[in-house]
Amino acid sequence: MNVYEMGYAMTATRVAVNGYGVIGKRVADAVRAMPDMVLVGVADVATDWRVRTAIGLDIPLYAATEPAGSAMRAAGVPLAGTLTDLLGAVDAVVDTTPKKVAGTNFDSYRKAGVKAIFQGGESHALTGHSFVAQANYATALGRDTTRVVSCNTTSIVRVLGALQDARLLARARGVLIRRATDPGESHLGGVMNTVVPEQNIPSHQGPDARTVLPGLDVVTMAAMAAHTQSHNHYWSLELTRAASREEVLGALRAAPRIAFIRMADGLVALNTTIELMRDLGRPRGDMWEVALWEDVLTVEGDEAYLTYQVYNEAIVVPESIDAIRALVGSITDGPTSIAMTDAALGVRQEFLPPATPVGGPEPARTAVT
Amino acid sequence: MNVYEMGYAMTATRVAVNGYGVIGKRVADAVRAMPDMVLVGVADVATDWRVRTAIGLDIPLYAATEPAGSAMRAAGVPLAGTLTDLLGAVDAVVDTTPKKVAGTNFDSYRKAGVKAIFQGGESHALTGHSFVAQANYATALGRDTTRVVSCNTTSIVRVLGALQDARLLARARGVLIRRATDPGESHLGGVMNTVVPEQNIPSHQGPDARTVLPGLDVVTMAAMAAHTQSHNHYWSLELTRAASREEVLGALRAAPRIAFIRMADGLVALNTTIELMRDLGRPRGDMWEVALWEDVLTVEGDEAYLTYQVYNEAIVVPESIDAIRALVGSITDGPTSIAMTDAALGVRQEFLPPATPVGGPEPARTAVT
Amino acid sequence: MNVYEMGYAMTATRVAVNGYGVIGKRVADAVRAMPDMVLVGVADVATDWRVRTAIGLDIPLYAATEPAGSAMRAAGVPLAGTLTDLLGAVDAVVDTTPKKVAGTNFDSYRKAGVKAIFQGGESHALTGHSFVAQANYATALGRDTTRVVSCNTTSIVRVLGALQDARLLARARGVLIRRATDPGESHLGGVMNTVVPEQNIPSHQGPDARTVLPGLDVVTMAAMAAHTQSHNHYWSLELTRAASREEVLGALRAAPRIAFIRMADGLVALNTTIELMRDLGRPRGDMWEVALWEDVLTVEGDEAYLTYQVYNEAIVVPESIDAIRALVGSITDGPTSIAMTDAALGVRQEFLPPATPVGGPEPARTAVT
Amino acid sequence: MNVYEMGYAMTATRVAVNGYGVIGKRVADAVRAMPDMVLVGVADVATDWRVRTAIGLDIPLYAATEPAGSAMRAAGVPLAGTLTDLLGAVDAVVDTTPKKVAGTNFDSYRKAGVKAIFQGGESHALTGHSFVAQANYATALGRDTTRVVSCNTTSIVRVLGALQDARLLARARGVLIRRATDPGESHLGGVMNTVVPEQNIPSHQGPDARTVLPGLDVVTMAAMAAHTQSHNHYWSLELTRAASREEVLGALRAAPRIAFIRMADGLVALNTTIELMRDLGRPRGDMWEVALWEDVLTVEGDEAYLTYQVYNEAIVVPESIDAIRALVGSITDGPTSIAMTDAALGVRQEFLPPATPVGGPEPARTAVT
Repeated sequence: MNVYEMGYAMTATRVAVNGYGVIGKRVADAVRAMPDMVLVGVADVATDWRVRTAIGLDIPLYAATEPAGSAMRAAGVPLAGTLTDLLGAVDAVVDTTPKKVAGTNFDSYRKAGVKAIFQGGESHALTGHSFVAQANYATALGRDTTRVVSCNTTSIVRVLGALQDARLLARARGVLIRRATDPGESHLGGVMNTVVPEQNIPSHQGPDARTVLPGLDVVTMAAMAAHTQSHNHYWSLELTRAASREEVLGALRAAPRIAFIRMADGLVALNTTIELMRDLGRPRGDMWEVALWEDVLTVEGDEAYLTYQVYNEAIVVPESIDAIRALVGSITDGPTSIAMTDAALGVRQEFLPPATPVGGPEPARTAVT
Repeated sequence: MNVYEMGYAMTATRVAVNGYGVIGKRVADAVRAMPDMVLVGVADVATDWRVRTAIGLDIPLYAATEPAGSAMRAAGVPLAGTLTDLLGAVDAVVDTTPKKVAGTNFDSYRKAGVKAIFQGGESHALTGHSFVAQANYATALGRDTTRVVSCNTTSIVRVLGALQDARLLARARGVLIRRATDPGESHLGGVMNTVVPEQNIPSHQGPDARTVLPGLDVVTMAAMAAHTQSHNHYWSLELTRAASREEVLGALRAAPRIAFIRMADGLVALNTTIELMRDLGRPRGDMWEVALWEDVLTVEGDEAYLTYQVYNEAIVVPESIDAIRALVGSITDGPTSIAMTDAALGVRQEFLPPATPVGGPEPARTAVT
Repeated sequence: MNVYEMGYAMTATRVAVNGYGVIGKRVADAVRAMPDMVLVGVADVATDWRVRTAIGLDIPLYAATEPAGSAMRAAGVPLAGTLTDLLGAVDAVVDTTPKKVAGTNFDSYRKAGVKAIFQGGESHALTGHSFVAQANYATALGRDTTRVVSCNTTSIVRVLGALQDARLLARARGVLIRRATDPGESHLGGVMNTVVPEQNIPSHQGPDARTVLPGLDVVTMAAMAAHTQSHNHYWSLELTRAASREEVLGALRAAPRIAFIRMADGLVALNTTIELMRDLGRPRGDMWEVALWEDVLTVEGDEAYLTYQVYNEAIVVPESIDAIRALVGSITDGPTSIAMTDAALGVRQEFLPPATPVGGPEPARTAVT
Repeated sequence: MNVYEMGYAMTATRVAVNGYGVIGKRVADAVRAMPDMVLVGVADVATDWRVRTAIGLDIPLYAATEPAGSAMRAAGVPLAGTLTDLLGAVDAVVDTTPKKVAGTNFDSYRKAGVKAIFQGGESHALTGHSFVAQANYATALGRDTTRVVSCNTTSIVRVLGALQDARLLARARGVLIRRATDPGESHLGGVMNTVVPEQNIPSHQGPDARTVLPGLDVVTMAAMAAHTQSHNHYWSLELTRAASREEVLGALRAAPRIAFIRMADGLVALNTTIELMRDLGRPRGDMWEVALWEDVLTVEGDEAYLTYQVYNEAIVVPESIDAIRALVGSITDGPTSIAMTDAALGVRQEFLPPATPVGGPEPARTAVT
């Protein structure tokens, strides 16, 4: 059921997506899945299968620049107009163009008088506000622009923010094992059979999280590994006090967009979680949640250790949707927007139905403390 | 819209799937997508996330063996019964159990009086009939069993069979670059940073194609490469006569379940095709078609050269569906069954809408003859 | 120059290597490179290229078991005798057999009255002593057996031990990114395109380091990544006091078998270090040193962060050599043995000649703090 | 033993290598290993670990350009002079610079009056002569320049040339599975988890082989796979007549620089051969030979099928050495030069000592026809 069927079209927020790439195409689909939004169109510069797929999906396509428009028309790509046309017909634009391009669009959005949501590749300084829905929806209300932080930073804010909200977190030291490139682009230049350590400690994700959670005591180290799908974070946490494992889990469960998975269920590696997403029938096999291994989480005294998976292609999509509502002001309450987004997408805290053992003790778990 | 909604339940073919793995879960979903079939249930022996996913999808789950049933119940997996129960309630079973297991099920199916479709991991001798819908649907009609040939062999029969039907094929020599393991199992033992040549020439796929197309003059060599998704075949063909490129393409276009892709559209590697499938919203990103690179196909005199992609996780799914109808006899005409299957799944010959260049010549293609 | 040429044969320690695999073949070569040792022979059970390579290198080959001897002779592998024969002719044996096998050899070695060095796959309990040369050579002197700890644990003891010796280390929290399998066996079952988190926190390497350095406050988390050569560790360290970067580096430089590499030299990933080893003409491209990125090391107040590379195929080789001398008692001083081993192998603290800039300022380093 | 020790210095051919990369560093070492050559120096433009390694190996280093010279001096890289200086002191230069650079050096070499050997990245037109020692050493004698063809083409000329010399080859159709990038550069942009088909059929290697063997009836298709070390070719051959397997093998054995390996020896994948090279103590684990799987080779009537491995980092090194002698004219007989090169490098036809089974029949081979 979408906005057209519900008859909300007159009051729906009109949205444009500029940049129909890994993030943009997902944001476009998510906008189409929201009951209170309408996707007016997407803009891009490509002429190949990627934009022609949009046309096959009945998404109005606009040329992001004049030269691109000429090339696209010459290539037989049917256009609904240019980015200027598109901006004239929307309330908000989500900019998902590549790093260097996004900044140059800033003035165009302002001139057109549309609210603009940028992505984590841009600097905090561009917008002066960085966004993660659960942390600071309120401060984004009515602003002209915000920046949805990167996939890694989003996950850090979700998880560490949850522990901070419960007044449990004193200090966090993390190691991020990043994917080398996205699966649809892995023929263009990835890293093979090696690990590439980030040259700077702290890597930028720690400081970046402080653009949303200013007081966070966090240091990150990062490495790029030889796989294409999703990041994997490892954290050593100092707590404000000795706590039980259930207290820590409880704090995490109280936060949105963190899902709990278990080694004991056979979900033992990044690829098994991804296979599960495919089996759940999710679009593109996407996972919008941070997937945290519940049965690996260990708490000893005032220290906690945990690992989770960050599906970088999709994790910022629900945040982008919430950011639209916050800027436009159509929903003034963060939790309400989060709930709307999550219901429409199908965000979950548990991916599997609960097991209800019959006729015997719970089965042994495989080598898990 | 499925069988329940259409009120066809009384006449629908009742189907079981034994083995809820890479192929089985896809066959189960395909059965549910068919207007003339009902999925009564699936059987398996696992206790982990895989079968619990089935339950989350409201698929009745049966224990494939008695010991498995005890373990599953102990693990809290809700069961609808055992395989014996399941076989008692269906017209046909698709056996998608692992290689060594399938043969042992043969007698159970016969005793239960259900039609049985096996997979390509089993020998031709087990059933005495090997099946590819476009090639020999008619000879499967009313039989008790058949074997849907393997993913590689299915693709060979589709492509070489199309050329044979057009009386164009004299001799085929192929090299198969196989994926090492499936993506959901790539943590369990794949091959890394190497290529593993098949030790025997011809590899088994050539002779195997002759179980469906007896007269084929085909020799295959095979190698396993260090990737997880889909096979890639390269063929040198001797034609029966000098032919034009369009004649060869015409013969291929006349066959079902071959889709045409182009380097010029940016579909330049196995992963780009897979990304396209994800973007098309296909379940699990599946591709049931052989994807043949139209603009790489080269014909010189009486020789032709071509390459195509075989999405091994899904290519045999439509064949399995057709095999059900052939054995049960619910549809006696092969092309009709193929059309029904393909319409329900969304099988296509072209993945992209046609390009209609405006205001200029066709854009240059990238380095393609 | 080896023992034969030097005329030391009469007094040289006679050594056997049982298990001619990844570690065993390297220990065998290292024994041959030592001026005070003679390799009497190696024992194995294989019949393929691996043991035939030994024969091509003029290494006497013995059958590790009777059945293996029959198979080896039948396969045309020329044998010098059985393991019993070999043990009768040596002072010490280095056991580099697979995990389950090594324990069963324990009694054979004791009966033969030979000193026995086991590898890190075995438990500490087997020998009651675990060995890293720089840490506890003295306590191994004259013992019948010891266990050279695993590659990961060896690196931990070298690096954390160095900081502990300088009274700088209070607490260490590490993340280990492990290689999936060795390059010569990567066709047999590795992990592809994924990361596999270790299910237990702490992973075993932390506690294992305490078998050598009992008081260490260390916790490790581990993951297996999709590459074949060498591990990569990341450490967050709490120091006993605020210290300067130079103090920390100084402590590390005071320890043996830690080499310093720099991102600024273009050594930016695991594979570049390995390429350097190949270029240096090292046997098999081996690196016996922990390679620590000097210009990534960061110290802030009483915290330090660092990353290093562990070449798992070779790092325990010099330790195994030292362990022989310690058990046999031929050298009673640890540093003397270490120096002998390192000189014979070519162990280095710096791999590149120093740069001496001329006519200008030091060149800019690439994005390194 | 090298030229200095043998006292040949006065008459030795003085050689420069321009470009100290993957091929250049190997050619430099090979020149140093030849009894009739002296390496005067190498030229490059880099400032990082790669050239500093050369200095550590006591190889005189020259700046390939003036700007590079300034940068290198500023970076502290000690220089022996510039390329102009180097060219003034040599009889021949092997140009192993990247593709676009090599052509611009052509005039410099001519002006300096030095013989120049280019690599396969350059076009045949640049030199008017393309070189594979066994095929056309004679026509290169005394020329000013030649081009050593690429790794893939070299292997094709060696193998197909051997069959052509025996008047056995009528037609060859091949599929080349190429490595994505070299292992020392695999962090810079490889292809991950996919296969990339070459867009053109025939791929360039077939026509390129005809620059050396003009009459060859050869068509190649090519693909890039997700591994870093060595190519793997598969061939379907039409023979001039029905022949026995032994005849085909005999023709191959009569040619130089083809080594025979066997699946039955456990050499079952590209990585096992590479591990063998490391175990043989070869510099950098290099393999200069085409490694052809003897027990996979199949002959049926007038058709033959075979697969071999091409170690792309090193296979053209011996050809480059022979090319020096041919241009300089120091050795006028091709086979004599080949024998000199191969003896100095350690080129072999068999890597393992022969097996001599005792007390029983030959052991069963694993699934090999």
